[in-house]
Formats: sequence, C-alpha cells, structure tokens
Amino acid sequence: MHWARWGDPEAAQPLAASARGLVELAFGPAVERATTPLPDVRLPEPALDPALLGELVDLLGTDHVRTDHEARVRHTRGKSTPDLLRMRQGDGSDAPDAVVLPADHAEVAAVVSWCGERRVAVVPFGGGTSVVGGLAARRDGYAGVVALDLRRLDRLVSVDPVSMTAVLEAGVRGPRAEELLAEHGLTLGHFPQSFEYASIGGFAATRSSGQASAGYGRFDQLVVGLTVATPIGTLELGSAPANAAGPDLRELVLGSEGAFGVITSVTVRVRAVPEQKVYETWRFASFGDGAAALRDLVQHDCAPTVLRLSDENETALNLAKPDEVGGDSAGGCLVVTGFEGTPDDVARRRATVSARLEKAGGTSLGAEDGAAWAAGRFHGPYLRDAMLDIGVLVETLETATFWSNLPRLYAAVADALTTALTDEQGGPIVLCHVSHVYETGASLYFTVAAKQDGDGLAQWATAKGAASDAMIAAGATITHHHAVGRDHKPWLAREIGPVGVEMLRAVKERVDPFGVLNPGALVP
Amino acid sequence: MHWARWGDPEAAQPLAASARGLVELAFGPAVERATTPLPDVRLPEPALDPALLGELVDLLGTDHVRTDHEARVRHTRGKSTPDLLRMRQGDGSDAPDAVVLPADHAEVAAVVSWCGERRVAVVPFGGGTSVVGGLAARRDGYAGVVALDLRRLDRLVSVDPVSMTAVLEAGVRGPRAEELLAEHGLTLGHFPQSFEYASIGGFAATRSSGQASAGYGRFDQLVVGLTVATPIGTLELGSAPANAAGPDLRELVLGSEGAFGVITSVTVRVRAVPEQKVYETWRFASFGDGAAALRDLVQHDCAPTVLRLSDENETALNLAKPDEVGGDSAGGCLVVTGFEGTPDDVARRRATVSARLEKAGGTSLGAEDGAAWAAGRFHGPYLRDAMLDIGVLVETLETATFWSNLPRLYAAVADALTTALTDEQGGPIVLCHVSHVYETGASLYFTVAAKQDGDGLAQWATAKGAASDAMIAAGATITHHHAVGRDHKPWLAREIGPVGVEMLRAVKERVDPFGVLNPGALVP
Repeated sequence: MHWARWGDPEAAQPLAASARGLVELAFGPAVERATTPLPDVRLPEPALDPALLGELVDLLGTDHVRTDHEARVRHTRGKSTPDLLRMRQGDGSDAPDAVVLPADHAEVAAVVSWCGERRVAVVPFGGGTSVVGGLAARRDGYAGVVALDLRRLDRLVSVDPVSMTAVLEAGVRGPRAEELLAEHGLTLGHFPQSFEYASIGGFAATRSSGQASAGYGRFDQLVVGLTVATPIGTLELGSAPANAAGPDLRELVLGSEGAFGVITSVTVRVRAVPEQKVYETWRFASFGDGAAALRDLVQHDCAPTVLRLSDENETALNLAKPDEVGGDSAGGCLVVTGFEGTPDDVARRRATVSARLEKAGGTSLGAEDGAAWAAGRFHGPYLRDAMLDIGVLVETLETATFWSNLPRLYAAVADALTTALTDEQGGPIVLCHVSHVYETGASLYFTVAAKQDGDGLAQWATAKGAASDAMIAAGATITHHHAVGRDHKPWLAREIGPVGVEMLRAVKERVDPFGVLNPGALVP
Repeated sequence: MHWARWGDPEAAQPLAASARGLVELAFGPAVERATTPLPDVRLPEPALDPALLGELVDLLGTDHVRTDHEARVRHTRGKSTPDLLRMRQGDGSDAPDAVVLPADHAEVAAVVSWCGERRVAVVPFGGGTSVVGGLAARRDGYAGVVALDLRRLDRLVSVDPVSMTAVLEAGVRGPRAEELLAEHGLTLGHFPQSFEYASIGGFAATRSSGQASAGYGRFDQLVVGLTVATPIGTLELGSAPANAAGPDLRELVLGSEGAFGVITSVTVRVRAVPEQKVYETWRFASFGDGAAALRDLVQHDCAPTVLRLSDENETALNLAKPDEVGGDSAGGCLVVTGFEGTPDDVARRRATVSARLEKAGGTSLGAEDGAAWAAGRFHGPYLRDAMLDIGVLVETLETATFWSNLPRLYAAVADALTTALTDEQGGPIVLCHVSHVYETGASLYFTVAAKQDGDGLAQWATAKGAASDAMIAAGATITHHHAVGRDHKPWLAREIGPVGVEMLRAVKERVDPFGVLNPGALVP
C-alpha cells in the first residue's frame, strides 16, 4: 500500500484522456496538485520513553518494534479523502510513536496487557484501509501511541470441511485468505472494494460488507467465532452457530473497531469455490423501477450472488465511453447481477432472476458489461488518486434504510451534498448506487466529486456533516459498511441514543479500564 | 394457562391406554400423584409496604395492581418440570408480592423507573412459559418483588407492506400475532412449542427459535428493531436492516431476559401468508445418515421450511401405534420436512429436496405422518402433565454445536442423562431430535423420562447438572433456544468465560444501577 495513495501505484491506470475531458467539462481546467515527498512528511516527536520502548523490544524482539520515519508514516491514519489530503500536504501529525509486530495471539495479548499497565495507547492495524478515521488515536494523557500491526498473524489455522468453517488469523489479507482457502477448494466470498488490502480482523472489527453480499452475506454473517485479546484477558466466543445463551457477545465484538480488544483470529463460514461465475447487466427506466425490481428479488428469496443498481447519474457516467461523450445515452439505470456456483445452479437461478427482472420492466444488456464491471470492481480507489492529482476531490458515503424509506433517504442525502458543495462556480457530481440488499431494506452508496477548494478539508467536512445530518434526520443509519471510527461518532450517538451510548461506554470501561484501546474511536 | 400445568386443561388429551401401557412397561406400576389445590398453595407474606403499593396504584390505577392469592400464584415461576413439581406440591415461595399491568410503553417505563427509585425488584412476565427459571426473582435486599405482566400491550402498532415489517407490542401472544398479521395477509412464521402462550417480547428476550426456523429463521433473525424501557431511559434500536454503526446493540437486547430492560415493542420481518403448507416424512437407516442428509440440504441452500430428524429411540416411540406396541418396527430414523409458500414454490422446492434426500439414502413415507406431526406439534407439554400425574418425570434439554461435533455431543449428553438417572430399578428413556439446522451446525433436543424419585427435585437437579456439564465439556452451548434464566447461569459463565461475564455485568450495572431488573436472572 502506498503511504499517500490507494494500493500499489504500479497497478494504477493513468486517468484516460476522455475522463480528464469529462472532469474539465464539469469543473473547469485541471489544477495539478503535488504530493509532499515521503521524507518531508512532518511527524510529531516520538513521545514514547526509551525505557518503555525497551520493554516492547523485550516482549517482541528488536526486529518487531519499529520507530523509523517510514514505518511511522505508513501507519498514520487510513485512506479517507481527508486522510489522503492531509498526507499529500505533508501532515503526519497523527503518526504513532512506534509500530509493533507481534507474532501470535500470545504476543498480542502481552502487548495489550503491557499497554494497559503502562498507559500506552494502542491502535490495531490490519490493512490500514479505514475511511472513517478509525486509526488516528487520541494522544492526550497517554505515555505514547503504538500501532499494533497484525501482518504476522497470517495463518489459516484450521479448516473444518464437515461444518464448512475455517479459522483465520486476524492479519490475513483478503487475497491471501482466498489463496489459503482455495487450497482446500473453499472460498470466503467476501469482496469489499478494500479486498486487496483489508484484513480478516479488520473485516470483523468494522462489520465489512462485500460486493457479493447478496449471495454470501455480510462479513458479520460469516463469523461464527472470535478470539480477542483485551486488557482484562482473552475472550473466546463461538460455541454454536446460534444459541439462546444470553445476548450474542459476538455481535458486541463485531464492529468494535479495536476499542474493546484486539481480534486475533476469526472462525468463518466458508463455501465451495464456485465452478462458474456469470455477471450480467440490465437496464431499467428509472432508479425507482430498478429498486422495486431488486426488492422483488430479495423478498422472494431469489437474489443472485451479486446485485447492485446504479442511479441515472452513475449509469450515465459508467456507460459513457470515450466516443460517446456528449452523445445520446439510452438513459435509465443499470443493474448488475452476478451468479456463482455450479453451472446447473447458476443456470437455474439466472433463469428465475431473468424472468422476474423482465416482468419488472428490465432489459438485459447481456454479459459483456457485467464482465467489465467485475474486472474493474476494485479500481475505484485508484481513480480517486488520479482525480486528487488534478484538484478534484472525490469521496464516498454510504447508509442504509428500510425499503419504504429509500426514496426519501436518497433525495435527502443527494440534496445535502449538492447544496453543501455548490458555489458560484458550480456544483458537485453526485452518483449513487444500491450496493447491498436485504429483505427489509437496502444500502445507498454515494460517490461525490467536486472541484477542490483550498486544502479541501473544510470543504469536505461541511459536505460530510450535511450528508450525515440528512441520514440521521431521515431515520437511517450513519454507516452501512464503513464503520464509525472518529468521523461518524457524533452521528452514532444520535442513532443509538443516550442509553445505547451508555451500553457501549459500560463495556468499554470494563474491558479497557485504562482506556488504552484505540482511544477516541467508536465510543461517543 | 393453568397455574400448575401447561396450557388449558380442557385442551389436554388424557393419556392413551397404550401410552400408559408403555410407561408401565418401562417404569413399573403407575403411582398417582396429586396436585395441591390452588387455594392451598403456600405463598410468602407480601413484603411490599402498603405505601409503596399505593404509589403503584397511583401510577396504573387500582384495577391494574393485583395482590390477590390467585394472581400471585399465576405469576409464580414458569413451566419447567421443577417449576411444575414445586407448584403441584403447593410451594409458591417464589411468588411476587404484586402483579402490575401497565397499558403501554409509557406506563412500563414509569413502573421500571419507580422500581429503580424504590428498590423494588421487577420481573417482566409475558406468557409465563419459561423453562429455565427465568421468572423467579431474588428477594434479598429489595423492598419487594412485582411481576410486570405485559398482556395489555397487545396491539399490532403498524405494518409496512413495502419493507415487509410490522411493529408488535411485547404482550401480543403467538396466536394473536398471527391473527393480527393475517388481516394484512402476513405471517411471522414463528412457531415454537410454546407458541400458544408465549409473547412477542418473550420471544425476543429469550432468543426463541420456532419449528419452522429452517424457512423463516430464528426469532432473533426476524427482529429488525426494538423499544426497551430501562431504569436509565428508553432505548430505541433499528435504524436499518443491517449496518456497521458499531456493535449491534439489538443483539445485546435479544436474549437479555428482562435483566437489561423491559422490551415493550418489537419490529419484526414478516412474510406473505403461505398459500400452501405440505409436510412429509422420510426414513433414514440411522441418526448419522439422517444428520448427513440434513447437512447436505442446508449447506446447499435448499432447506425446506421445516426440517427435523428424530433419533432411533424417538422414532420408535413416535411411530409406535397402539396395535404396534411390542411388534416389529421398521427401525431407522424419521425426518420431517415441511414446505410453505405458493404451490409453484412448494412443488419446486419439494422436488429439489426429495431428490437430495433420496440420493442420501432416504425413503419417503409420504404426507400422512407429516400431517400428523403438524397437527400434534404443540401437544408435547400437555403430555408431560399426564405423565407427572402418574409419577413419571419428563423434561427436555437442548443444545447446539457445529456439524463435525454433533456425534460427540449427542453421545455425551445421552450418556450423562442415562448414567445420572439409572438406579437399581432401571434407567430413563432418552429421546433426541435435531430441531434446528444451520449451514455450520445444528441443535439437539433431548426428551428424558424417568420414574419420579421422592419429590423429583434433587433427582432432576443431578441429571440436569450432569447433562449441562456434558454440553460444556463437549464445547457446545448450554442452550439453543430455551435461554439462561437461573437454571443455566453457572454453565453460561463457563461458556462465555470471565471476560464475557464482565461484559454482561458491565451493561447490567450501567442500565440497571440498582439491580432491580429480574434480579438473579441471566447475569452470572
């Protein structure tokens, strides 16, 4: 992962001339924006006393405690647009004092326990892909801040082919998890846009949801067990697929964002590697028609493995090919369906879905655009860097609600973003798609692009605040799958109310009595 | 509900002569055991000061605060076999001092708040069907104990036919919920054996699971929102079908058994009333073969609406008809499948399931026995009273684990029960069935019958303890759908470990600072 961009810059494609043309059409001439070189990133003086550092070295060995400039920069914040803007501008003020790399659960537990004793803040670090400020610890009152990088917890511990479960250590990244499971003919089926870098522990700690959630389920639905190192001891959960043994404490660890403990391994449900994958696109006359069709599928228990619906704006942009810019568009809204399984299973489910989508007014566009979507499914974040390079701020926001409330939520958030980002020179581009569906509702995923104003930070904070206010005012959730971190915390408090906040605080204070676990994250 | 038996005695069938013959064959001559008459049940002197009672009357009105003998007896404990044994013997020592009947959320909230201020213990009471000691409050240190009966919270508040959700008040009982929803063409699809009496709030507070869970899901999977009155205020949850807004606090309220607050309404997922219901039975050569067939169905995403598998003992007993007693049995194990939906949907799913069950070695026995099972699905608890009348103790226990561990768990619990209940005169009858299936595992539901020894209480406590130890030693859960109450509490602590216990205690102490909510239940 690049320290100030998404992913591996080698894998990034330069902005196509046609895309640049579109951007200049919308926002005027490009303004090249440079990135501060890595050595010039400004870091705070390390606060951690050398004696304390020595104790960490005693625990983990000298190779596994790093304090060099680059290690600190690479563990500073996550990958939200404000995170990138700050880092590009050379602001490394949230850097940890040290990066520690424990080898296994026992070493993680030792570090967590030591941090409690020494009042050192500790931020679990998986893939570093947070887009909600999940990795920037509060510093006040602590003897220092360490990033606990889980990359050495990288094993597939065991596979149970009868129960169709597997135990993965928390530091295993998405592609590596799939590789390890594929040796057993298995897949996790979890493909969020952060897949290439995000880790198993991070998926659990943030309630990640993947692009194939309609078929495989959200990550929280895939978790059957967890091991967690807390300052008061180790927590092991997962005695059965489901039970009535009181509140489900797994659901208290899922989404806990390192504030209740460090997840060191996760027992997940797995499936057989699908023999066939087929993607297809459909066109509907409007976003409302498309949403009704998605709802029909999921409420009749025949959702495909992948199911998403772009609104008119996103459809127009995604379908615009270089030679079509400025030309006529057939309009409407694009639906992507994907089917994974045995050829028989794929054929049967695809036939059912096709019949229902046709009846709902959809027109199949065939498999070509579907394959293009699948091929480009992890490219979005790279494009964002290319846009930031030319002075265009791009960010995403997501929420969810019940089906009957979806039109209201859609309009409210789009309006809030448009209003907040419009000035005398023009307004933003706001795109939206339904990214995840449930029997009772769906998520909305917004992408917004605007000409960067100054350092972009105040501009984005205003827009983000307006959109977040609109979500809560519409009775929706502040986040469907990006988690809370620091950025969503004020709205989480409004979403769960004062009693809900007290529940979180009570657990936090009990398992982390000195408040060293990811201070400032999640808990209002 | 009868005060010392299950349900409405008018609906109970007398023990068939053939069944009595079977019992005498197993346990020797029947010993008639009488029940103490209602007026002779011994209750503790009411502890609640008249001034406090007066304050309750001020809150709720004189008609809604009851202190008469019968009301107190009817709100004493639940319906476990030890509960019935004690009540039959005239022991009403766990009776509340008063029964209060608030009308709505506001009145419940007022009572809960008042109980906190006045240090009065309060036990939420829905259907009174607990079989785990969920309703017997600890008395020490309290100014008194009141049962908070939710029967007046009996409304279907709203229906959202687009999102397919409905809001039901907590006191609505199973059959009434189905009646109210049926007026809108909807069903909840939740049919536990306690269905006729248990309430919506109780389903949520205990993580109930119904006989059609394979098709409709557990009750916790049907809940999308909750309103809860706690001593520190009202908690409202359910902003979206799913989200990443921190830990899922709904899952902390589900299974909280009145210890964190009183659930006053629940937003549930609903479905269209099925046009057709078809039940069928199948025979497999062994319990292992049957379990493998169930696993195959659920891991290939084609489980029917109802799916259960009886072991050899339960199969032999259930299939024994009067004229077959002592005759040859075809042996093997019985599977019940049920399909609910449109005729097309039922036909399609039944064909898929039939093909897989045949391939797995099953033989269809047709729909006749399936219909008989469906007709008698709520009769079990009535039979228990008839057995207690002739000195035979009958009780059920349930647990769950992952598929690969199922054979070990099955053997361990059956052995523990058999060993604990065998004396020089003989041993118990132990029956078992798989009652609920998941992709990664299943539940086991044991029924045990033994000749009552003395008052039966010590005898049962020994057997229950041995079976519970066996569950935990096998790495399984102490309860799949009966909840924790007081009876499972020591084993819950072993299941979730000391950190898990601290999490529960932290929440309990924060939301219920004076410990008045169902004291002694759930939290170790």
